[in-house]
Amino acid sequence: MRTEFHAQLDALNTDLARMCEMAGEAMQRATLGLLTVDLDPAEHALSELEELGRLRREVDHAALTVLARQAPVASDLRAVVAAVHITSDADRMGGLAGHVARIVRRRHPESAVPNDVVGQFSEMGSLAVDLADDAASVIVDGDPVRASRIRDDDEAMNDMHRRLFSTVMSPQWTHGVQPAIDAVLLGRFYERFADHAVAIAARVLFRSTGQTALHPDK
Amino acid sequence: MRTEFHAQLDALNTDLARMCEMAGEAMQRATLGLLTVDLDPAEHALSELEELGRLRREVDHAALTVLARQAPVASDLRAVVAAVHITSDADRMGGLAGHVARIVRRRHPESAVPNDVVGQFSEMGSLAVDLADDAASVIVDGDPVRASRIRDDDEAMNDMHRRLFSTVMSPQWTHGVQPAIDAVLLGRFYERFADHAVAIAARVLFRSTGQTALHPDK
Repeated sequence: MRTEFHAQLDALNTDLARMCEMAGEAMQRATLGLLTVDLDPAEHALSELEELGRLRREVDHAALTVLARQAPVASDLRAVVAAVHITSDADRMGGLAGHVARIVRRRHPESAVPNDVVGQFSEMGSLAVDLADDAASVIVDGDPVRASRIRDDDEAMNDMHRRLFSTVMSPQWTHGVQPAIDAVLLGRFYERFADHAVAIAARVLFRSTGQTALHPDK
Repeated sequence: MRTEFHAQLDALNTDLARMCEMAGEAMQRATLGLLTVDLDPAEHALSELEELGRLRREVDHAALTVLARQAPVASDLRAVVAAVHITSDADRMGGLAGHVARIVRRRHPESAVPNDVVGQFSEMGSLAVDLADDAASVIVDGDPVRASRIRDDDEAMNDMHRRLFSTVMSPQWTHGVQPAIDAVLLGRFYERFADHAVAIAARVLFRSTGQTALHPDK
Protein backbone atom coordinates (compact mmCIF):
# COMPACT_ATOMS: atom_id res chain seq x y z
CA MET A 1 0.00 0.00 0.00
CA ARG A 2 2.84 2.40 0.86
CA THR A 3 4.50 1.55 -2.44
CA GLU A 4 1.31 2.18 -4.36
CA PHE A 5 0.95 5.53 -2.58
CA HIS A 6 4.47 6.58 -3.47
CA ALA A 7 4.03 5.56 -7.09
CA GLN A 8 0.89 7.73 -7.21
CA LEU A 9 2.72 10.60 -5.54
CA ASP A 10 5.60 10.31 -8.04
CA ALA A 11 3.09 10.44 -10.88
CA LEU A 12 1.47 13.52 -9.32
CA ASN A 13 4.83 15.24 -8.97
CA THR A 14 5.79 14.42 -12.55
CA ASP A 15 2.58 16.08 -13.71
CA LEU A 16 3.14 19.09 -11.45
CA ALA A 17 6.65 19.52 -12.85
CA ARG A 18 5.19 19.28 -16.35
CA MET A 19 2.69 22.00 -15.44
CA CYS A 20 5.57 24.29 -14.39
CA GLU A 21 7.45 23.54 -17.59
CA MET A 22 4.37 24.29 -19.67
CA ALA A 23 3.88 27.60 -17.85
CA GLY A 24 7.56 28.37 -18.57
CA GLU A 25 7.15 27.47 -22.25
CA ALA A 26 4.05 29.65 -22.48
CA MET A 27 5.94 32.56 -20.90
CA GLN A 28 8.88 31.98 -23.26
CA ARG A 29 6.59 32.13 -26.29
CA ALA A 30 4.63 35.11 -25.00
CA THR A 31 7.92 36.94 -24.36
CA LEU A 32 9.18 36.07 -27.84
CA GLY A 33 5.96 37.51 -29.25
CA LEU A 34 6.48 40.63 -27.16
CA LEU A 35 10.12 41.13 -28.16
CA THR A 36 9.72 40.39 -31.86
CA VAL A 37 6.19 41.86 -32.25
CA ASP A 38 5.03 38.51 -33.58
CA LEU A 39 1.51 37.14 -33.10
CA ASP A 40 2.35 33.48 -33.81
CA PRO A 41 4.26 32.68 -30.62
CA ALA A 42 1.74 34.70 -28.60
CA GLU A 43 -1.15 32.65 -30.01
CA HIS A 44 0.85 29.47 -29.46
CA ALA A 45 1.29 30.47 -25.82
CA LEU A 46 -2.46 30.93 -25.45
CA SER A 47 -3.27 27.54 -26.95
CA GLU A 48 -0.69 25.91 -24.68
CA LEU A 49 -2.60 27.33 -21.72
CA GLU A 50 -5.67 25.36 -22.67
CA GLU A 51 -3.59 22.19 -22.39
CA LEU A 52 -2.24 23.40 -19.08
CA GLY A 53 -5.81 23.87 -17.83
CA ARG A 54 -6.70 20.31 -18.86
CA LEU A 55 -3.64 18.94 -17.09
CA ARG A 56 -4.53 20.96 -14.01
CA ARG A 57 -7.97 19.40 -13.81
CA GLU A 58 -6.45 15.92 -14.20
CA VAL A 59 -3.90 16.57 -11.46
CA ASP A 60 -6.51 18.02 -9.09
CA HIS A 61 -8.65 14.95 -9.66
CA ALA A 62 -5.67 12.62 -9.13
CA ALA A 63 -4.81 14.38 -5.86
CA LEU A 64 -8.36 13.94 -4.57
CA THR A 65 -8.25 10.26 -5.57
CA VAL A 66 -4.99 9.72 -3.69
CA LEU A 67 -6.40 11.42 -0.58
CA ALA A 68 -9.61 9.39 -0.73
CA ARG A 69 -8.05 5.99 -1.43
CA GLN A 70 -4.80 6.17 0.53
CA ALA A 71 -5.79 8.46 3.43
CA PRO A 72 -2.14 9.53 3.87
CA VAL A 73 -0.91 11.08 7.13
CA ALA A 74 2.07 13.19 8.30
CA SER A 75 4.59 14.00 5.56
CA ASP A 76 2.70 11.92 2.98
CA LEU A 77 -0.42 13.98 3.62
CA ARG A 78 1.54 17.23 3.46
CA ALA A 79 2.97 16.16 0.11
CA VAL A 80 -0.50 15.68 -1.40
CA VAL A 81 -1.81 18.95 0.07
CA ALA A 82 1.29 20.69 -1.31
CA ALA A 83 0.40 19.22 -4.71
CA VAL A 84 -3.09 20.71 -4.45
CA HIS A 85 -1.56 24.15 -3.84
CA ILE A 86 1.07 23.75 -6.55
CA THR A 87 -1.55 23.11 -9.23
CA SER A 88 -3.01 26.55 -8.40
CA ASP A 89 0.38 28.24 -8.54
CA ALA A 90 1.44 26.61 -11.80
CA ASP A 91 -1.94 27.33 -13.37
CA ARG A 92 -1.66 30.96 -12.31
CA MET A 93 1.85 31.16 -13.79
CA GLY A 94 0.30 30.04 -17.05
CA GLY A 95 -2.43 32.67 -16.60
CA LEU A 96 0.21 35.38 -16.26
CA ALA A 97 1.96 34.19 -19.44
CA GLY A 98 -1.49 34.48 -21.04
CA HIS A 99 -1.78 38.10 -19.89
CA VAL A 100 1.53 38.87 -21.60
CA ALA A 101 0.37 37.14 -24.79
CA ARG A 102 -2.91 39.08 -24.77
CA ILE A 103 -1.13 42.42 -24.48
CA VAL A 104 1.00 41.42 -27.50
CA ARG A 105 -2.21 40.62 -29.37
CA ARG A 106 -3.96 43.82 -28.29
CA ARG A 107 -1.15 46.08 -29.53
CA HIS A 108 -0.30 44.15 -32.70
CA PRO A 109 0.96 45.21 -35.27
CA GLU A 110 2.44 47.86 -32.98
CA SER A 111 4.98 46.83 -30.36
CA ALA A 112 3.59 46.83 -26.82
CA VAL A 113 6.93 48.04 -25.44
CA PRO A 114 9.20 50.87 -26.63
CA ASN A 115 12.69 49.93 -27.79
CA ASP A 116 14.39 51.30 -24.70
CA VAL A 117 12.78 48.70 -22.43
CA VAL A 118 12.93 45.70 -24.79
CA GLY A 119 16.23 44.64 -23.18
CA GLN A 120 14.66 44.68 -19.72
CA PHE A 121 11.77 42.48 -20.85
CA SER A 122 14.18 40.11 -22.53
CA GLU A 123 15.96 39.65 -19.19
CA MET A 124 12.72 39.31 -17.23
CA GLY A 125 11.45 36.72 -19.72
CA SER A 126 14.58 34.62 -19.51
CA LEU A 127 14.56 34.78 -15.69
CA ALA A 128 10.90 33.69 -15.73
CA VAL A 129 11.71 30.64 -17.84
CA ASP A 130 14.60 29.70 -15.51
CA LEU A 131 12.30 30.08 -12.52
CA ALA A 132 9.68 27.79 -14.03
CA ASP A 133 12.28 25.15 -14.89
CA ASP A 134 13.84 25.35 -11.44
CA ALA A 135 10.40 25.02 -9.83
CA ALA A 136 9.85 21.88 -11.94
CA SER A 137 13.18 20.43 -10.75
CA VAL A 138 12.51 21.25 -7.13
CA ILE A 139 9.14 19.47 -7.32
CA VAL A 140 10.73 16.31 -8.70
CA ASP A 141 13.83 16.01 -6.53
CA GLY A 142 13.55 18.73 -3.84
CA ASP A 143 17.04 19.95 -4.84
CA PRO A 144 17.94 22.65 -2.25
CA VAL A 145 20.45 24.29 -4.63
CA ARG A 146 17.73 24.88 -7.19
CA ALA A 147 15.36 26.03 -4.43
CA SER A 148 17.85 28.66 -3.30
CA ARG A 149 18.46 29.71 -6.91
CA ILE A 150 14.73 30.36 -7.15
CA ARG A 151 15.02 32.76 -4.24
CA ASP A 152 17.98 34.53 -5.87
CA ASP A 153 16.23 34.76 -9.23
CA ASP A 154 13.12 36.12 -7.56
CA GLU A 155 15.21 38.87 -5.96
CA ALA A 156 16.78 39.60 -9.35
CA MET A 157 13.26 39.79 -10.80
CA ASN A 158 12.19 42.23 -8.08
CA ASP A 159 15.23 44.39 -8.87
CA MET A 160 14.35 44.39 -12.55
CA HIS A 161 10.76 45.25 -11.74
CA ARG A 162 11.91 48.25 -9.67
CA ARG A 163 14.29 49.28 -12.45
CA LEU A 164 11.46 49.15 -14.97
CA PHE A 165 9.36 51.37 -12.71
CA SER A 166 12.19 53.89 -12.49
CA THR A 167 12.56 53.90 -16.26
CA VAL A 168 8.87 54.45 -16.84
CA MET A 169 8.55 57.12 -14.12
CA SER A 170 11.66 59.05 -15.13
CA PRO A 171 11.46 62.41 -16.92
CA GLN A 172 13.30 60.72 -19.82
CA TRP A 173 10.21 58.60 -20.54
CA THR A 174 8.85 60.18 -23.71
CA HIS A 175 6.41 57.50 -24.81
CA GLY A 176 3.38 58.76 -22.95
CA VAL A 177 0.79 57.08 -20.77
CA GLN A 178 -0.35 53.99 -22.66
CA PRO A 179 3.11 52.42 -23.21
CA ALA A 180 3.91 53.26 -19.58
CA ILE A 181 0.84 51.37 -18.40
CA ASP A 182 1.56 48.40 -20.66
CA ALA A 183 5.16 48.28 -19.43
CA VAL A 184 4.14 48.43 -15.76
CA LEU A 185 1.44 45.78 -16.11
CA LEU A 186 3.79 43.53 -18.08
CA GLY A 187 6.45 44.02 -15.42
CA ARG A 188 3.95 43.03 -12.78
CA PHE A 189 3.03 39.85 -14.67
CA TYR A 190 6.68 38.72 -14.76
CA GLU A 191 7.16 39.65 -11.12
CA ARG A 192 4.05 37.71 -10.04
CA PHE A 193 5.16 34.76 -12.17
CA ALA A 194 8.38 34.69 -10.12
CA ASP A 195 6.41 34.94 -6.86
CA HIS A 196 4.47 31.80 -7.75
CA ALA A 197 7.71 29.92 -8.47
CA VAL A 198 8.88 30.97 -5.00
CA ALA A 199 5.56 29.81 -3.55
CA ILE A 200 6.03 26.42 -5.21
CA ALA A 201 9.53 26.03 -3.76
CA ALA A 202 8.15 27.01 -0.34
CA ARG A 203 5.43 24.39 -0.60
CA VAL A 204 7.94 21.70 -1.56
CA LEU A 205 9.97 22.66 1.48
CA PHE A 206 6.81 22.59 3.58
CA ARG A 207 5.92 19.14 2.39
CA SER A 208 9.20 17.79 3.79
CA THR A 209 9.46 19.82 6.99
CA GLY A 210 5.96 20.98 7.90
CA GLN A 211 7.38 24.51 8.17
CA THR A 212 7.28 27.27 5.59
CA ALA A 213 10.57 29.10 5.23
CA LEU A 214 10.02 31.21 2.13
CA HIS A 215 7.50 33.99 1.96
CA PRO A 216 5.79 34.02 -1.42
CA ASP A 217 3.28 36.82 -1.05
CA LYS A 218 4.73 40.21 -0.44
CA MET B 1 -17.23 10.06 14.02
CA ARG B 2 -19.29 11.71 11.26
CA THR B 3 -20.59 14.20 13.81
CA GLU B 4 -17.10 15.03 14.99
CA PHE B 5 -16.02 15.53 11.37
CA HIS B 6 -18.90 17.85 10.64
CA ALA B 7 -18.25 19.88 13.78
CA GLN B 8 -14.62 20.28 12.67
CA LEU B 9 -15.72 21.23 9.17
CA ASP B 10 -18.15 23.82 10.55
CA ALA B 11 -15.32 25.29 12.63
CA LEU B 12 -13.09 25.38 9.52
CA ASN B 13 -15.80 27.14 7.53
CA THR B 14 -16.43 29.67 10.30
CA ASP B 15 -12.73 30.54 10.24
CA LEU B 16 -12.69 30.73 6.43
CA ALA B 17 -15.65 33.11 6.49
CA ARG B 18 -13.85 35.19 9.12
CA MET B 19 -10.79 35.30 6.83
CA CYS B 20 -12.95 36.71 4.01
CA GLU B 21 -14.49 39.26 6.34
CA MET B 22 -11.05 40.34 7.56
CA ALA B 23 -9.87 40.72 3.96
CA GLY B 24 -12.98 42.82 3.29
CA GLU B 25 -12.36 44.97 6.37
CA ALA B 26 -8.73 45.48 5.34
CA MET B 27 -9.86 46.53 1.86
CA GLN B 28 -12.46 48.86 3.35
CA ARG B 29 -9.82 50.56 5.51
CA ALA B 30 -7.26 50.71 2.71
CA THR B 31 -9.90 52.28 0.45
CA LEU B 32 -10.85 54.79 3.14
CA GLY B 33 -7.15 55.72 3.40
CA LEU B 34 -7.03 56.10 -0.37
CA LEU B 35 -10.14 58.25 -0.64
CA THR B 36 -9.45 60.51 2.33
CA VAL B 37 -5.63 60.57 1.98
CA ASP B 38 -5.35 59.30 5.55
CA LEU B 39 -2.52 57.08 6.79
CA ASP B 40 -4.32 55.76 9.88
CA PRO B 41 -6.84 53.46 8.19
CA ALA B 42 -4.14 52.33 5.73
CA GLU B 43 -1.82 51.33 8.61
CA HIS B 44 -4.76 49.70 10.37
CA ALA B 45 -5.39 47.63 7.23
CA LEU B 46 -1.78 46.49 7.20
CA SER B 47 -1.81 45.40 10.83
CA GLU B 48 -5.07 43.54 10.26
CA LEU B 49 -3.27 41.53 7.57
CA GLU B 50 -0.84 40.18 10.11
CA GLU B 51 -3.79 38.77 12.04
CA LEU B 52 -5.19 37.38 8.82
CA GLY B 53 -1.86 35.61 8.20
CA ARG B 54 -1.96 34.07 11.67
CA LEU B 55 -5.51 32.86 11.15
CA ARG B 56 -4.53 31.42 7.77
CA ARG B 57 -1.77 29.32 9.35
CA GLU B 58 -4.21 28.05 11.99
CA VAL B 59 -6.80 27.13 9.38
CA ASP B 60 -4.25 25.38 7.16
CA HIS B 61 -3.10 23.40 10.16
CA ALA B 62 -6.68 22.56 11.15
CA ALA B 63 -7.44 21.36 7.61
CA LEU B 64 -4.41 19.04 7.64
CA THR B 65 -5.49 17.71 11.04
CA VAL B 66 -9.00 16.97 9.78
CA LEU B 67 -7.61 15.18 6.72
CA ALA B 68 -5.19 13.12 8.82
CA ARG B 69 -7.59 12.17 11.61
CA GLN B 70 -10.86 11.78 9.75
CA ALA B 71 -9.66 10.62 6.31
CA PRO B 72 -12.84 12.00 4.71
CA VAL B 73 -14.00 10.80 1.28
CA ALA B 74 -16.33 12.04 -1.48
CA SER B 75 -18.06 15.35 -0.76
CA ASP B 76 -16.54 15.54 2.74
CA LEU B 77 -13.06 15.28 1.24
CA ARG B 78 -13.90 17.89 -1.40
CA ALA B 79 -15.09 20.24 1.33
CA VAL B 80 -11.75 20.06 3.15
CA VAL B 81 -9.73 20.42 -0.06
CA ALA B 82 -11.91 23.41 -0.97
CA ALA B 83 -11.04 24.88 2.44
CA VAL B 84 -7.34 24.48 1.66
CA HIS B 85 -7.82 26.47 -1.56
CA ILE B 86 -10.02 29.08 0.08
CA THR B 87 -7.35 29.95 2.66
CA SER B 88 -5.06 30.87 -0.25
CA ASP B 89 -7.71 32.98 -1.94
CA ALA B 90 -8.74 34.83 1.22
CA ASP B 91 -5.10 35.40 2.16
CA ARG B 92 -4.44 36.77 -1.31
CA MET B 93 -7.46 39.08 -1.03
CA GLY B 94 -5.86 40.44 2.13
CA GLY B 95 -2.55 40.80 0.26
CA LEU B 96 -4.29 42.90 -2.41
CA ALA B 97 -5.83 45.15 0.26
CA GLY B 98 -2.26 45.49 1.57
CA HIS B 99 -1.07 46.62 -1.87
CA VAL B 100 -3.70 49.37 -1.85
CA ALA B 101 -2.66 50.44 1.67
CA ARG B 102 1.01 50.54 0.66
CA ILE B 103 0.29 52.79 -2.32
CA VAL B 104 -1.58 55.15 0.06
CA ARG B 105 1.49 55.15 2.32
CA ARG B 106 3.94 55.64 -0.54
CA ARG B 107 2.15 58.74 -1.87
CA HIS B 108 1.23 60.30 1.48
CA PRO B 109 0.74 63.25 2.12
CA GLU B 110 -0.19 63.48 -1.57
CA SER B 111 -3.28 61.66 -2.81
CA ALA B 112 -2.48 58.56 -4.87
CA VAL B 113 -5.44 59.21 -7.15
CA PRO B 114 -6.54 62.41 -8.88
CA ASN B 115 -9.95 63.84 -7.94
CA ASP B 116 -11.57 62.81 -11.18
CA VAL B 117 -11.18 59.07 -10.42
CA VAL B 118 -11.90 59.19 -6.67
CA GLY B 119 -15.55 58.37 -7.36
CA GLN B 120 -14.55 55.29 -9.37
CA PHE B 121 -12.33 54.01 -6.56
CA SER B 122 -15.08 54.63 -4.05
CA GLU B 123 -17.38 52.37 -6.08
CA MET B 124 -14.72 49.70 -6.59
CA GLY B 125 -13.95 49.72 -2.87
CA SER B 126 -17.55 49.29 -1.87
CA LEU B 127 -18.05 46.49 -4.41
CA ALA B 128 -14.94 44.77 -3.02
CA VAL B 129 -16.32 44.86 0.51
CA ASP B 130 -19.66 43.43 -0.68
CA LEU B 131 -17.81 40.68 -2.55
CA ALA B 132 -15.80 39.71 0.53
CA ASP B 133 -18.94 39.62 2.70
CA ASP B 134 -20.84 37.60 0.13
CA ALA B 135 -17.95 35.14 -0.14
CA ALA B 136 -18.06 34.75 3.66
CA SER B 137 -21.82 34.03 3.52
CA VAL B 138 -21.47 31.56 0.69
CA ILE B 139 -18.81 29.65 2.65
CA VAL B 140 -21.07 29.35 5.68
CA ASP B 141 -24.39 28.49 4.07
CA GLY B 142 -23.69 27.93 0.35
CA ASP B 143 -26.46 30.45 -0.45
CA PRO B 144 -26.89 30.32 -4.26
CA VAL B 145 -28.40 33.84 -4.35
CA ARG B 146 -25.28 35.29 -2.77
CA ALA B 147 -23.10 33.15 -5.07
CA SER B 148 -24.81 34.56 -8.14
CA ARG B 149 -24.55 38.10 -6.72
CA ILE B 150 -20.80 37.51 -6.51
CA ARG B 151 -20.77 36.79 -10.22
CA ASP B 152 -22.78 39.94 -10.96
CA ASP B 153 -20.58 42.09 -8.74
CA ASP B 154 -17.46 40.66 -10.40
CA GLU B 155 -18.84 41.68 -13.79
CA ALA B 156 -19.61 45.14 -12.42
CA MET B 157 -16.03 45.29 -11.12
CA ASN B 158 -14.68 44.31 -14.54
CA ASP B 159 -16.76 47.06 -16.14
CA MET B 160 -15.41 49.60 -13.66
CA HIS B 161 -11.89 48.39 -14.31
CA ARG B 162 -12.36 48.92 -18.04
CA ARG B 163 -13.87 52.34 -17.43
CA LEU B 164 -10.89 53.29 -15.31
CA PHE B 165 -8.56 52.22 -18.12
CA SER B 166 -10.50 54.38 -20.58
CA THR B 167 -10.30 57.36 -18.25
CA VAL B 168 -6.56 56.98 -17.77
CA MET B 169 -5.85 56.36 -21.47
CA SER B 170 -8.05 59.18 -22.73
CA PRO B 171 -6.59 62.43 -24.12
CA GLN B 172 -8.43 64.21 -21.27
CA TRP B 173 -6.05 62.60 -18.75
CA THR B 174 -3.82 65.49 -17.74
CA HIS B 175 -2.18 64.04 -14.63
CA GLY B 176 0.79 62.43 -16.35
CA VAL B 177 2.39 59.02 -16.09
CA GLN B 178 2.80 58.34 -12.37
CA PRO B 179 -0.84 58.89 -11.33
CA ALA B 180 -1.87 56.86 -14.40
CA ILE B 181 0.27 53.95 -13.26
CA ASP B 182 -0.98 54.17 -9.68
CA ALA B 183 -4.57 54.25 -10.89
CA VAL B 184 -4.11 51.25 -13.19
CA LEU B 185 -2.31 49.17 -10.56
CA LEU B 186 -4.92 50.07 -7.94
CA GLY B 187 -7.65 49.15 -10.40
CA ARG B 188 -5.99 45.81 -10.97
CA PHE B 189 -5.81 45.13 -7.21
CA TYR B 190 -9.57 45.66 -6.84
CA GLU B 191 -10.26 43.60 -9.92
CA ARG B 192 -8.09 40.70 -8.69
CA PHE B 193 -9.73 40.96 -5.27
CA ALA B 194 -13.07 40.33 -6.99
CA ASP B 195 -11.61 37.41 -8.96
CA HIS B 196 -10.61 35.68 -5.73
CA ALA B 197 -14.12 36.13 -4.32
CA VAL B 198 -15.40 34.46 -7.50
CA ALA B 199 -12.83 31.69 -7.05
CA ILE B 200 -14.07 31.11 -3.50
CA ALA B 201 -17.68 30.87 -4.64
CA ALA B 202 -16.58 28.43 -7.36
CA ARG B 203 -14.78 26.28 -4.81
CA VAL B 204 -17.81 26.20 -2.53
CA LEU B 205 -19.88 25.09 -5.51
CA PHE B 206 -17.25 22.48 -6.34
CA ARG B 207 -17.31 21.11 -2.83
CA SER B 208 -20.98 20.31 -3.15
CA THR B 209 -21.08 19.12 -6.76
CA GLY B 210 -17.56 18.04 -7.71
CA GLN B 211 -17.87 20.32 -10.75
CA THR B 212 -16.55 23.82 -11.19
CA ALA B 213 -19.04 26.15 -12.82
CA LEU B 214 -17.43 29.55 -12.41
CA HIS B 215 -14.16 30.54 -13.99
CA PRO B 216 -12.07 32.56 -11.57
CA ASP B 217 -8.86 33.14 -13.53
CA LYS B 218 -9.20 35.14 -16.69
